[in-house]
Amino acid sequence: MKENERLKTYKLSEIDNLKVHGRTTGRLSPLTLFWTGSAVELNAKGSELWVEVEVDYDIYEPWISIVIDSVAVSRQMLTSGRYWVCVFRGMNENTTKNVRIVKDVQAMNGDPGCSMQIHAVKFDGKFLPIQKRSYKIEFIGDSITSGEGAIGAKAEEDWIPMWFSAINNYGTMTAEALNAEYRIISQSGWGVLTSWDNNPHGNIPEYYDKVCGLLTGKKNEALGAFKENDFASWQPDIVVVNLGTNDCGAFTSPEWKDETTGENHKQRMNEDGTYNEDDLKAFENAIQSFLIKLRKYNKNAHIIWVYGMLGVSIMPSIYRAVDAYMKKIGDKKVSVFQLPNTTDETIGARSHPGVLAHKKAAKELTGYIKEILAN
Amino acid sequence: MKENERLKTYKLSEIDNLKVHGRTTGRLSPLTLFWTGSAVELNAKGSELWVEVEVDYDIYEPWISIVIDSVAVSRQMLTSGRYWVCVFRGMNENTTKNVRIVKDVQAMNGDPGCSMQIHAVKFDGKFLPIQKRSYKIEFIGDSITSGEGAIGAKAEEDWIPMWFSAINNYGTMTAEALNAEYRIISQSGWGVLTSWDNNPHGNIPEYYDKVCGLLTGKKNEALGAFKENDFASWQPDIVVVNLGTNDCGAFTSPEWKDETTGENHKQRMNEDGTYNEDDLKAFENAIQSFLIKLRKYNKNAHIIWVYGMLGVSIMPSIYRAVDAYMKKIGDKKVSVFQLPNTTDETIGARSHPGVLAHKKAAKELTGYIKEILAN
Amino acid sequence: MKENERLKTYKLSEIDNLKVHGRTTGRLSPLTLFWTGSAVELNAKGSELWVEVEVDYDIYEPWISIVIDSVAVSRQMLTSGRYWVCVFRGMNENTTKNVRIVKDVQAMNGDPGCSMQIHAVKFDGKFLPIQKRSYKIEFIGDSITSGEGAIGAKAEEDWIPMWFSAINNYGTMTAEALNAEYRIISQSGWGVLTSWDNNPHGNIPEYYDKVCGLLTGKKNEALGAFKENDFASWQPDIVVVNLGTNDCGAFTSPEWKDETTGENHKQRMNEDGTYNEDDLKAFENAIQSFLIKLRKYNKNAHIIWVYGMLGVSIMPSIYRAVDAYMKKIGDKKVSVFQLPNTTDETIGARSHPGVLAHKKAAKELTGYIKEILAN
Amino acid sequence: MKENERLKTYKLSEIDNLKVHGRTTGRLSPLTLFWTGSAVELNAKGSELWVEVEVDYDIYEPWISIVIDSVAVSRQMLTSGRYWVCVFRGMNENTTKNVRIVKDVQAMNGDPGCSMQIHAVKFDGKFLPIQKRSYKIEFIGDSITSGEGAIGAKAEEDWIPMWFSAINNYGTMTAEALNAEYRIISQSGWGVLTSWDNNPHGNIPEYYDKVCGLLTGKKNEALGAFKENDFASWQPDIVVVNLGTNDCGAFTSPEWKDETTGENHKQRMNEDGTYNEDDLKAFENAIQSFLIKLRKYNKNAHIIWVYGMLGVSIMPSIYRAVDAYMKKIGDKKVSVFQLPNTTDETIGARSHPGVLAHKKAAKELTGYIKEILAN
Repeated sequence: MKENERLKTYKLSEIDNLKVHGRTTGRLSPLTLFWTGSAVELNAKGSELWVEVEVDYDIYEPWISIVIDSVAVSRQMLTSGRYWVCVFRGMNENTTKNVRIVKDVQAMNGDPGCSMQIHAVKFDGKFLPIQKRSYKIEFIGDSITSGEGAIGAKAEEDWIPMWFSAINNYGTMTAEALNAEYRIISQSGWGVLTSWDNNPHGNIPEYYDKVCGLLTGKKNEALGAFKENDFASWQPDIVVVNLGTNDCGAFTSPEWKDETTGENHKQRMNEDGTYNEDDLKAFENAIQSFLIKLRKYNKNAHIIWVYGMLGVSIMPSIYRAVDAYMKKIGDKKVSVFQLPNTTDETIGARSHPGVLAHKKAAKELTGYIKEILAN
Repeated sequence: MKENERLKTYKLSEIDNLKVHGRTTGRLSPLTLFWTGSAVELNAKGSELWVEVEVDYDIYEPWISIVIDSVAVSRQMLTSGRYWVCVFRGMNENTTKNVRIVKDVQAMNGDPGCSMQIHAVKFDGKFLPIQKRSYKIEFIGDSITSGEGAIGAKAEEDWIPMWFSAINNYGTMTAEALNAEYRIISQSGWGVLTSWDNNPHGNIPEYYDKVCGLLTGKKNEALGAFKENDFASWQPDIVVVNLGTNDCGAFTSPEWKDETTGENHKQRMNEDGTYNEDDLKAFENAIQSFLIKLRKYNKNAHIIWVYGMLGVSIMPSIYRAVDAYMKKIGDKKVSVFQLPNTTDETIGARSHPGVLAHKKAAKELTGYIKEILAN
Repeated sequence: MKENERLKTYKLSEIDNLKVHGRTTGRLSPLTLFWTGSAVELNAKGSELWVEVEVDYDIYEPWISIVIDSVAVSRQMLTSGRYWVCVFRGMNENTTKNVRIVKDVQAMNGDPGCSMQIHAVKFDGKFLPIQKRSYKIEFIGDSITSGEGAIGAKAEEDWIPMWFSAINNYGTMTAEALNAEYRIISQSGWGVLTSWDNNPHGNIPEYYDKVCGLLTGKKNEALGAFKENDFASWQPDIVVVNLGTNDCGAFTSPEWKDETTGENHKQRMNEDGTYNEDDLKAFENAIQSFLIKLRKYNKNAHIIWVYGMLGVSIMPSIYRAVDAYMKKIGDKKVSVFQLPNTTDETIGARSHPGVLAHKKAAKELTGYIKEILAN
Repeated sequence: MKENERLKTYKLSEIDNLKVHGRTTGRLSPLTLFWTGSAVELNAKGSELWVEVEVDYDIYEPWISIVIDSVAVSRQMLTSGRYWVCVFRGMNENTTKNVRIVKDVQAMNGDPGCSMQIHAVKFDGKFLPIQKRSYKIEFIGDSITSGEGAIGAKAEEDWIPMWFSAINNYGTMTAEALNAEYRIISQSGWGVLTSWDNNPHGNIPEYYDKVCGLLTGKKNEALGAFKENDFASWQPDIVVVNLGTNDCGAFTSPEWKDETTGENHKQRMNEDGTYNEDDLKAFENAIQSFLIKLRKYNKNAHIIWVYGMLGVSIMPSIYRAVDAYMKKIGDKKVSVFQLPNTTDETIGARSHPGVLAHKKAAKELTGYIKEILAN
């Protein structure tokens, strides 16, 4: 191989026209990417580009997708270590390539050792300004929003990063269709009140205020994951909340035992197959509280609670809760929208929505958001 | 990161149930993959699998796609060096994963330094037998069959490996639909008589007899690329030849000058916009000669000459040539089939068929081959 | 023309295996078809079949579609008079054709002179038993459920029967997909509380008890349209109510003046663009009352309130009302389901859902009903 | 019913802006429509329109489709007699409706008694000029081009007019996509040399010169069907010939015995399953002769021989014949184009291409013709 001797190394902090996507601490030396769909974006006029990553994990390795001119051309596992990844080479040095290096797996609550960082790039050209997108959208959700099962064969059952996708993802697709910047805040198995297995700590709202509060461990603390998020720096036009599927699942899952307190938690079903009213109420209160918190941090956003990609069982509760919140607070910029259900034709790996289900959901959601943005 | 201490390293030659796809020399220490779509396949019952590659190039780097249970889940550039690539990790050790590591770029006539080899795998489980496919198909072609432009944005114009795909490829799709093993013999820009720029050496037939005769240089010689191919070891049921598009282009391209002999070559057009009869005849003779060679090596295969994904201008010549061959030789197992043209909706990068064009072509071709196989 | 001398005339009442679809009075001499989608069905083993219709109207003429073996092969306007329509001729007398003569236009509240009757058939064969469908479904709705605009060019603006379709209709499509018998109760422009123009008489619930209570005039009275409907004779498994779109429209339409009482009616909007709470409440009360009525007549049906094919503005009210009803009555067999919105791609004539929008809605609704029927 | 007293009756010959489609004798008192897809077209500014037809037949009745603003809104059988058919009523008298009354069934060689005529219209408005289409296309073919099986259930097997469609027809669809006027010359079961059952009279070329030469009997003679066609009055830009499918079928059908001469005709197969060379040659000669005739009458048209919607078995012969013709005559404006095959997904009634097969064929053919028209 002939070395390209014109390559120069730049720390991220040295790059003028760097765009970082997703919630981060603001640090660039190095940059830690926490959430799925978070990314660095560059408009690279040059022939060859590399990026230096540093990766570690105990269990779940990160993956990245490389998106060139809006097309995902590479997807790879990042094994542990600090090393260079080539983004492109041999290209016309006079054309500008829009490049996004996208974290393709969710933040991993279950692996305190998991981290993905970017130190630097090597390049032989110039970084040009990046065009501003028309809107900002935040997506908040569970495995569906993490793109779990959106890649891989239907038969796959392992819970591993390989089957997660930030690309085959209704959030990314919707943002793309609306020419919007976006952020994803999501955790597989979690809900607005509890996780699918009745763990009351498996809820997104509790950790929403921090940069990536649902992570765990000293390392993530050191990386700044538990710092207050700087909401002022990125105010979305739209917040999409896709939570409830796991809260619904909790009703039919065994109770969860808190090993430290000895307490049990369980969303109960009545004998006639209906949901226990008190537990339903707790779920609805959690929605209301989360909406209050979302509004606190996102002053002008229209908040859309979406639901339905894996069934609509608990939709009445969602409507009731949103209704109650709106009346109580007098907040009119909130609404509920049902997404299309996943079918035999559209299902993916791990009994989750496949890429076709994500495409369909994105199409309907895009239409709905367009109407809101038009008003 | 915790090391998986149960991983054992196996040379390819030590693996019982290894399946190699694509024309190779037969050597496994290491295995050289020459052609796009060539691959190693394993049925891996275990939790973690790595593959050791050795890669070099002067200009054009190889890429691979990793296909798990028939779904492409990873695609990455292989930069130069000898190193390990992780195929999967953290999976259920009791389930069997069908894995294919596929070379995603064509053999590179233009880069004598380009090579891709596989030395070994690391694994913590057992390799199980691989189910035999129902048929064997060989695809012979040019950039279309190399999947050039089948990935990447429409705007892309660089001639680089990134835009080539063995996955978004009508050959692979057709083979998959027919549950067939397959091989691809292809070179971008080449024809059956000359390349698009009138170079008389840019033709596939001249090099068909060798393992990968269109490569160049000492290194490839050492790797065995110029050895006689062992046709007896792999006799296809179907041979698909998709050549003619560049031969047609030669008529409207400038003449090619042989720098060593000083001779010029040019497929000529008449003043009235028709093709010169003599040059057309040369093209038709080249088809006939190639059919004779194909039949020599593939005794029982049905040979299908396909054409049309980038226009049908020269189809009458193809029909004439195939007709003449069949009559002369009395060979009945040859036919011509028109593939659907690429449209504004289905075009990909570099003005080549995009993934939708490949899907459409694969669907029509699959239907046609099914009828042949049924007789 | 050679007369088919083997044709015999049968009054409908003389036919053993006659199946009448849609609400009727039970009279067969003649049979009056009131609602869109109502039909006579025959399994006709013979070569030639005619049907004798009698039709009249002041303004809006009826149309029929002829469905042979589940495919709509003919659609025609029925002009006034009593005459024979040929259904088929020249067919193999030994095969059995499933035939449906379907009224293709809604009952016409605005035309007291409109009527469509069937007196008799002429046939040269035998009528065989008709296979029982798996389920019964009733669809209740407005113009959407009447299939207004589901046929015709996008530019069409006339309010005429030609643009109404019982075939390009999500109700018919859903029933077909579920192998269900079905009835449609619908009126363009009407709602659950008022019509789109605030007319408080333009509501379906008021007339639900009668055979076809929303018709007007002496003639319809004589035809039995205002008789109590015999609910016991046809108990649906599913009742789909698609009302609310016109109630929503009333908020943005001028007030309606009752010329007899001098009273005005108007669903009001607040100055801030929200709906007036009292008027919203009236709408929700209307939903609750209708649900009570529906349950009275349909003891075991699962009732699905669907909404969304022309926007979802008033969905929160629908959820609130259904919720309140369910709690008050303790009725668990009621639910709400959002149908996909109509888009630029799927719109039909008169700014109404086109056939593609109906297909999409039917697909989603079918999936949802399947889940209900599976429980 | 209230009579519309403003209706006035116009003989066709009295209408200024009448457009007649399809080959006719030029007579308008009355107008006889012979071929499928032939039509009268009007731009009708008024509220109500009727058309007076006169119809007769011994076996096969005519059908019409009514197309309003390019959408087929009605399709009906025309039983024998002279009577009025209402095209539309109750429409806005100030808007202009583009109306086509289209003969929906092929000319019937097998029924000398079959005829369809239009005498007059009743209208209450004005007929406005009809916009000229960009091109003229003639389609020549067999059952495929007659749209046999393009409507109706897959199970249908009767050979009756009901299953023929000029609307679900690749010819009509292609013309519409290209904004072209078009004519269809077609007969189910016929070929360029013989019909599917080896009848040497079942060939289109023999009758091409006449207005509708393939009809039979005194009545058709009186109607002018056997008059020389006035080719000068309508010179197409494109002639599409879709013949060969039945010629191919003849090879596998029993011989045909001429009852008058006692002679037998049979396209023979060799024992090895190939086509007899002499008979193939006869087929190819027939193609060449027809091309000569087509060129005689259509001086400037590009002639496209299409084939493939029901298999491609005989394509090499077609290419050979067209090739030979082009060389012999020096005619460059002729080409061959393969249409996509019909599949299980796209098949219609009577084992013929269904509407989806016609749509697919039209899409490919449209793309091909666009390229020709662009040169």
